[in-house]
Amino acid sequence: MKIAFIGLGNMGGAMAHNLLKAGQTVYGFDLSEKALKHFADAGGVVCSSPQQAATEADIVISMLPAAKHVREVYLGETGLLSVMKAGSLCIDSSTIDPQSVKDVAAAAAQKGIAMCDAPVSGGTIGAQAGTLTFMVGADAQTLERAKQVLVHMGKNIVHCGDVGTGQVAKICNNLILGISMAAVAEGMALGAKLGIDPEALAGVINSSSGRCWSSEVCNPWPNISPNAPAARGYQDGFATQLMLKDLGLAIEAAGQAKQPILLGGLVQQLYQQMCLQGNATLDFSSIIQQYLPQQAQG
Amino acid sequence: MKIAFIGLGNMGGAMAHNLLKAGQTVYGFDLSEKALKHFADAGGVVCSSPQQAATEADIVISMLPAAKHVREVYLGETGLLSVMKAGSLCIDSSTIDPQSVKDVAAAAAQKGIAMCDAPVSGGTIGAQAGTLTFMVGADAQTLERAKQVLVHMGKNIVHCGDVGTGQVAKICNNLILGISMAAVAEGMALGAKLGIDPEALAGVINSSSGRCWSSEVCNPWPNISPNAPAARGYQDGFATQLMLKDLGLAIEAAGQAKQPILLGGLVQQLYQQMCLQGNATLDFSSIIQQYLPQQAQG
Amino acid sequence: MKIAFIGLGNMGGAMAHNLLKAGQTVYGFDLSEKALKHFADAGGVVCSSPQQAATEADIVISMLPAAKHVREVYLGETGLLSVMKAGSLCIDSSTIDPQSVKDVAAAAAQKGIAMCDAPVSGGTIGAQAGTLTFMVGADAQTLERAKQVLVHMGKNIVHCGDVGTGQVAKICNNLILGISMAAVAEGMALGAKLGIDPEALAGVINSSSGRCWSSEVCNPWPNISPNAPAARGYQDGFATQLMLKDLGLAIEAAGQAKQPILLGGLVQQLYQQMCLQGNATLDFSSIIQQYLPQQAQG
Amino acid sequence: MKIAFIGLGNMGGAMAHNLLKAGQTVYGFDLSEKALKHFADAGGVVCSSPQQAATEADIVISMLPAAKHVREVYLGETGLLSVMKAGSLCIDSSTIDPQSVKDVAAAAAQKGIAMCDAPVSGGTIGAQAGTLTFMVGADAQTLERAKQVLVHMGKNIVHCGDVGTGQVAKICNNLILGISMAAVAEGMALGAKLGIDPEALAGVINSSSGRCWSSEVCNPWPNISPNAPAARGYQDGFATQLMLKDLGLAIEAAGQAKQPILLGGLVQQLYQQMCLQGNATLDFSSIIQQYLPQQAQG
Repeated sequence: MKIAFIGLGNMGGAMAHNLLKAGQTVYGFDLSEKALKHFADAGGVVCSSPQQAATEADIVISMLPAAKHVREVYLGETGLLSVMKAGSLCIDSSTIDPQSVKDVAAAAAQKGIAMCDAPVSGGTIGAQAGTLTFMVGADAQTLERAKQVLVHMGKNIVHCGDVGTGQVAKICNNLILGISMAAVAEGMALGAKLGIDPEALAGVINSSSGRCWSSEVCNPWPNISPNAPAARGYQDGFATQLMLKDLGLAIEAAGQAKQPILLGGLVQQLYQQMCLQGNATLDFSSIIQQYLPQQAQG
Repeated sequence: MKIAFIGLGNMGGAMAHNLLKAGQTVYGFDLSEKALKHFADAGGVVCSSPQQAATEADIVISMLPAAKHVREVYLGETGLLSVMKAGSLCIDSSTIDPQSVKDVAAAAAQKGIAMCDAPVSGGTIGAQAGTLTFMVGADAQTLERAKQVLVHMGKNIVHCGDVGTGQVAKICNNLILGISMAAVAEGMALGAKLGIDPEALAGVINSSSGRCWSSEVCNPWPNISPNAPAARGYQDGFATQLMLKDLGLAIEAAGQAKQPILLGGLVQQLYQQMCLQGNATLDFSSIIQQYLPQQAQG
Repeated sequence: MKIAFIGLGNMGGAMAHNLLKAGQTVYGFDLSEKALKHFADAGGVVCSSPQQAATEADIVISMLPAAKHVREVYLGETGLLSVMKAGSLCIDSSTIDPQSVKDVAAAAAQKGIAMCDAPVSGGTIGAQAGTLTFMVGADAQTLERAKQVLVHMGKNIVHCGDVGTGQVAKICNNLILGISMAAVAEGMALGAKLGIDPEALAGVINSSSGRCWSSEVCNPWPNISPNAPAARGYQDGFATQLMLKDLGLAIEAAGQAKQPILLGGLVQQLYQQMCLQGNATLDFSSIIQQYLPQQAQG
Repeated sequence: MKIAFIGLGNMGGAMAHNLLKAGQTVYGFDLSEKALKHFADAGGVVCSSPQQAATEADIVISMLPAAKHVREVYLGETGLLSVMKAGSLCIDSSTIDPQSVKDVAAAAAQKGIAMCDAPVSGGTIGAQAGTLTFMVGADAQTLERAKQVLVHMGKNIVHCGDVGTGQVAKICNNLILGISMAAVAEGMALGAKLGIDPEALAGVINSSSGRCWSSEVCNPWPNISPNAPAARGYQDGFATQLMLKDLGLAIEAAGQAKQPILLGGLVQQLYQQMCLQGNATLDFSSIIQQYLPQQAQG
């Protein structure tokens, strides 16, 4: 089985590495020389273009920054779909809008190529450890084929429905995540200001109806959740600018579907405000700084 | 030990009943004849005024609708503090602003009377079953005395800190709850509109970073969470108008503390919008109807 | 005609001064020695208590910080209504909630005392120049009596309806003002970031459908509106904390009336966020700083 | 001088009509047969493609629904820029994102073709009456050339700055407009609920600091502003879905510029909520219905 991997950055590089460790032959491409060097060091076959990697491949996996890159790579006169063989399979693990996935999948289908979306959660740590969760949008047959390689890169493979629904699941999950993190930030900051010990407050919340992933696993108040970014100055987490990107996808998809998301519309702008203030690369739980006195923000 | 219970409504009445079942003698008062009838049927001693109930009492428990009632009952020339004996204890289980609790506690202290706030979570079902959670604001000694009676009415007794912090914990928890419920409503409605099966979506969320009490235990989409109000037309839950009241306390307390709560300010108004539309008594998870087409709202 | 004036601060002191300049005899009271000194220097008769000032007065004017002060001054066993003579008139120019006005007016009516609310716009400059606008809530007869003294202190006397409606008008106006100022701040900051000259942008807005008092008279971008606080570091304007107070009245009144105000709920918290960051005394147009890069905020 | 006009809908058709009335020869194209029929009846020269219309044209004017149409029409191998002669001028009056304008202008410049953006305000009534306001982004020389034809279609020609700034001005103006309309809706609905006569309230606002175009010219409360859509069931105004489109452009442009617009993010979703409820074609001032009891919404 020939596997091609397009996009060997922090996420894609680690995922490809796990495929190599599992004994697969992987043909890879990235625009970055450094990424290609890492890939080669791990045993990958470096290609000079996406087309070279994808030609004769059974499976093409892509992990790209945004929808426009996915469209560029697959579509168009020189896109991957023009060189891939009939009967092959594309797995796109990028986080993009569902409509772009459907567009690429429709174009692929016309050439007899199967496609599924499989965005991930778990971050760079999960990518390295091979413990990612894949949210897969695919028909049953394509799902089974995709699983053959996804198992080497992740721990959980969740079938969400037809092609595009993997993106829908990720977008909706991260919409709720972005809002609930801000909610916990508001609640923790208010409680502290009103004089309750933050640890006691977190204890109540986490045993009551306010509990959520953001209060339990990634509490924005320092030293409540073990190992959370709040304990290390909000470094090495899920960057605010990435949360902002995902909320942008939610707003865009909601607009296309003519579906209102009131809190979503507001929190997108709150995370944007944080980026404006220079905190784009901090973990998104640093939104709690918006609720603390200015002097504490330095 | 003589116990007085002021406020025998849906919550207070059930709580007093559990005290009676535990073999305690309880002297009760309520403005409602019907409430007094129920109390008498259960073996309670009906009193003609709060003062009559509280005179010579060792412990006075109050469960009242709002801060103004708590202030009226305890303070003033004819308030309970004027008839209670030194060394006695007040436990207020009403949900009110922390400052009012502190004011009453300070007045009580001047008369040698101890006071703690012990607001509850668990609703009328928890009150009847004796499985309430009490969030207690008290010093260590008062906490121990309060526990003697609280154990008959609840399952969890959480010490939050000094007097007033029980209210702080409840307000902050419910602030997060009110926001995260709206977040789940937005995410579920968006996902459904974008074509993912709601049950599959809930599955992803509940095993990922969007999970929260509102997505797991009380999902606003019908028939996701077993026994949730969404399965029964949003009946018999935590009424929207009560959520609105609690958010009002959060806004008020935040204003006194000069602490911004941006999402809190918005969701308070969203729940108010629901009440304007005639849904005040539906469970607050019915906020999802704000995100569904009009025709589906009937 | 004996006039009593209760509350001789920045606003009340200047208003009383204009009455004195118009040849009226004014009996005044304030808790501040400094305020009383100014009042005496201007020819006022200093009293040792509100009661002393109001006894035998034909008209009592009050200008107090909040509803609780108004209630304390007029109501209760020793309140002004207990010493004022039947047939006299109270004019309250404080900005408070409409319900408090109605409560005091009802108590006054029982003693045969007329009452109207007459909150002002125009700020300390208008108070000094005698160019205030009074928004009066009163029946027709009371309005005519009030006008006799209001004309010495203001330029416009607007009849809003029955007692309490003066406050309603002021609250609703300032609600719109607070939101539209934030809207202009967002629009101006966005335009500047997108590369249009702020002066050209303001020109378009002010000749188009975005024009409003906040864009024309008090544009938050520096040096657009002549003499606006933005031109002088946001000093000497309508303090953010006062806007916050008025928005708090709007939220409170809306809550009592069960009326949603979604944007109102959000902007109240935005102004609160500004206060948290140490900008409580700056003009409320400084909200534009929330939309500018951090470094520009110093 | 040969003029080509691409897009002859409600707006473009009326604008082209005014050029014809001024004695110009106009070559037009639209996808709609009906639009072409109207254009021919008014004396226009119907063309079978945009290319046919634009070949040998001195000036091409376009009025298209969205950025993708503008890009399709001008760019690409068979786009207008490939057939237009060097030294000619493009005037795009569509409302689109500033970046698309800049992209088309840059491509035009490479062929020696000048380009300006000139979005309009004034609606279909202004287009028919020839009283539109044009917000023009262009260098000084291009502006002068564009004015030659714009004067036949509009009353005000405002120079906003370099190419793209016309769109920036329109987007920012409509952002403020969309928010201030919602603000007025909140204020008017709150005031009415609190018992003030809406006409009296509007009078106060319009003579005070809350006044804005939305309160004076297009008040959302029925029968306050003469001839406003509120007087005719919100028919024949600026459709909510068009306001939603413009707010979408603001959110998109803000996202590209990494500029937060908090209220903008929220009101976009509020207008989307209105569309979900079936009010997409009503004037955007019908947002006041979100603040009125449900029964009044039918």
